Amino acid sequence: MKILISNDDGIDSLGIFHLCNALKEVGEVTVVAPLSEQSAVGHAITMMHPLRVIKFYKDGNFFGYAVDGTPADCVKMGVRNILGFLPDIVVSGINHGSNTATSVIYSGTVSAAREAAIMDIPAIAISVTSHSVSNFDTACETAKKLVQLIGEKGLKKGTLLNVNVPDLPASEIKGMQLTKQGKSKWDDVYEKRVDPYGKEYFWLTGDFVETDDNLTLDQFAVKQKYVSVTPIHFDLTDHETYAQMSEWDIETLL
Amino acid sequence: MKILISNDDGIDSLGIFHLCNALKEVGEVTVVAPLSEQSAVGHAITMMHPLRVIKFYKDGNFFGYAVDGTPADCVKMGVRNILGFLPDIVVSGINHGSNTATSVIYSGTVSAAREAAIMDIPAIAISVTSHSVSNFDTACETAKKLVQLIGEKGLKKGTLLNVNVPDLPASEIKGMQLTKQGKSKWDDVYEKRVDPYGKEYFWLTGDFVETDDNLTLDQFAVKQKYVSVTPIHFDLTDHETYAQMSEWDIETLL
Repeated sequence: MKILISNDDGIDSLGIFHLCNALKEVGEVTVVAPLSEQSAVGHAITMMHPLRVIKFYKDGNFFGYAVDGTPADCVKMGVRNILGFLPDIVVSGINHGSNTATSVIYSGTVSAAREAAIMDIPAIAISVTSHSVSNFDTACETAKKLVQLIGEKGLKKGTLLNVNVPDLPASEIKGMQLTKQGKSKWDDVYEKRVDPYGKEYFWLTGDFVETDDNLTLDQFAVKQKYVSVTPIHFDLTDHETYAQMSEWDIETLL
Repeated sequence: MKILISNDDGIDSLGIFHLCNALKEVGEVTVVAPLSEQSAVGHAITMMHPLRVIKFYKDGNFFGYAVDGTPADCVKMGVRNILGFLPDIVVSGINHGSNTATSVIYSGTVSAAREAAIMDIPAIAISVTSHSVSNFDTACETAKKLVQLIGEKGLKKGTLLNVNVPDLPASEIKGMQLTKQGKSKWDDVYEKRVDPYGKEYFWLTGDFVETDDNLTLDQFAVKQKYVSVTPIHFDLTDHETYAQMSEWDIETLL
């Protein structure tokens, strides 16, 4: 399989290094990743300035292509300009930190995979639940197994798998669980500080409020030591509200 | 009604000026918008550097609060730090350029409204279909009518309305249409240039390929001179694939 790898932590991060090594065992790998960290950039793309592509080396060996843009930029650039063809799959990660529940909305890791899904390329976003990841083994094993499974079974056009792996030794992982996006979300707080010139500035902080309460929801599953696998898509239509609103007679509103 | 207004074109844009004037007729308005243009930033939020809030004046009169961040940052900051309470509704726009079909994924305008939906605040994103907008009248009228309608009927928690208005005189608009997110998408092309030092750089360009073919889809509706109103949400779960994958036995994969 021809595999395009990206991430949002940047091309020099540990997660993409481990993912690359793992997926070399199951396919032909090309890395196109952001030159610098792009966490929480969501599905941003770069239109206001041009992009550059740099060959990136690790220990004197060619590792991949760095783009001075976002994760979604990297996938567009990787497919359109670097590969020049649609790869069999795009894998984004391994992210340092979980991308469950409402966090999916803000995730650069997921956006790289979603950009692939928009191009009708099967895709996986994979994250480990701790920012200071200690265990990449299960995430690597999961990525290999899912890439092979998608190679066999395919994936519906426009769909990607959002995978979250507990940061635990393999022996403590209870297994894999098919899940839906949970409802847990951030309770934002801005921490006010004052600069040396007497002016205020604000840091985004807050707590992740966990409301998910069963194994069919991603955030609960990872807390229960399962690897969560959530199929997501980019049709944002709220079909339930669409049905309700068809009784609102908005056709007569203007 | 207490109305929080934001956008992605920046606090000094013409669209937010017209929206603000229109919504003052139906409620008490507070503007919190990006200091600089933030088109195509998707649902980015700022975590790697702190934010500042600046009082912004137009013609010597206080207009609103400018934040040196993204549209989603503005809504978080507006609700948590500036208002200090949940407004009755958040309206984002009026965007210069359409946000239909796959463009919704990249839209900063939509992300401001979605951030409100995440906080359980009803929200509207509103765009006019041309970058050089000539006609704001119908968009202003639409915003007022929809704010009042949501004031009466409410909106399901987690839902927002994504509204697109053809850039036409009011007399040429055929009416309002309840729609779903279309499938039209960008066919990306990177235009290669060479800088004065002989190095390559790339501009993102391309064509919007329109595949939508009926009035229930947003992109087709606006092309047919209707105002499209699409209810969207942030549950990205692909329930169809979830059902299919429950037969894949991924529980046994690790």
